[in-house]
Amino acid sequence: MKHLSFTTATIAAFLSATALWAGTAEDIAARAASFEAAFNSQDAAAVAAHYSEDGVILAPDTARIDGRAAIRTLWQAYVDAGVTDLELTTETLIDMGGTANEIGAFRLSVPDGNGGMVEARGKYVIIWKADAEGVWHLHWDIWNSSP
Amino acid sequence: MKHLSFTTATIAAFLSATALWAGTAEDIAARAASFEAAFNSQDAAAVAAHYSEDGVILAPDTARIDGRAAIRTLWQAYVDAGVTDLELTTETLIDMGGTANEIGAFRLSVPDGNGGMVEARGKYVIIWKADAEGVWHLHWDIWNSSP
Repeated sequence: MKHLSFTTATIAAFLSATALWAGTAEDIAARAASFEAAFNSQDAAAVAAHYSEDGVILAPDTARIDGRAAIRTLWQAYVDAGVTDLELTTETLIDMGGTANEIGAFRLSVPDGNGGMVEARGKYVIIWKADAEGVWHLHWDIWNSSP
Repeated sequence: MKHLSFTTATIAAFLSATALWAGTAEDIAARAASFEAAFNSQDAAAVAAHYSEDGVILAPDTARIDGRAAIRTLWQAYVDAGVTDLELTTETLIDMGGTANEIGAFRLSVPDGNGGMVEARGKYVIIWKADAEGVWHLHWDIWNSSP
């Protein structure tokens, strides 16, 4: 019984470790989906919570932004400007162990100034970083527009 | 003598390994300086040679660019447009071992359409990657404009 119990625990630990290892892409995809949902519900604080405390954003036509408080201010400005319907699509994800490098594409809807909305498209690089509990955060985030 | 010889070789190997480890930032700085020089001498082929064979550029208002041939075409277009005086400044460089993540700022001179030049400024993320010989190449390169 003792031996069986030990074996079961070992198998459980092995399966758990395997799941963690295999799950980086899935974990990051879930965080990206949660990020989209936070923005699309106009919750800039929830968007900012997806970044690391010392996260960096390099946004077009904007000075470098450092830290979660400034990151929240930027996203609040986009919410206030009426930007919505953010959709992120991962194209390349490289697991570096503790960090991960992603290339992706995005779409969003922007007010056209005449009461309508226009679609804007772009591409991005995100450096993801896992915290001490293994939760992934956007650590560096840079994007630009696509034709 | 035999023992002394072995000791000398060991010390030499240690010093060499230390130099390699400590030198990542310097090696990348040298490559960045060489990259600048290539562009500022209007040599798009030499610029492209600083990228990995499967390098990626995400340039503003341009579709994603994959591979050294397409990268050369993009840089040739900038040369042909009269862009010059590229200056790169590293702000943050994280050595990931085999790859390195950089945040930086750039300046360049762009024709103003009236016979003069205007300065343009921006910021970038570069993912550097060392090849089998330890030579660093730009692997991912994305930038956007600064105010």
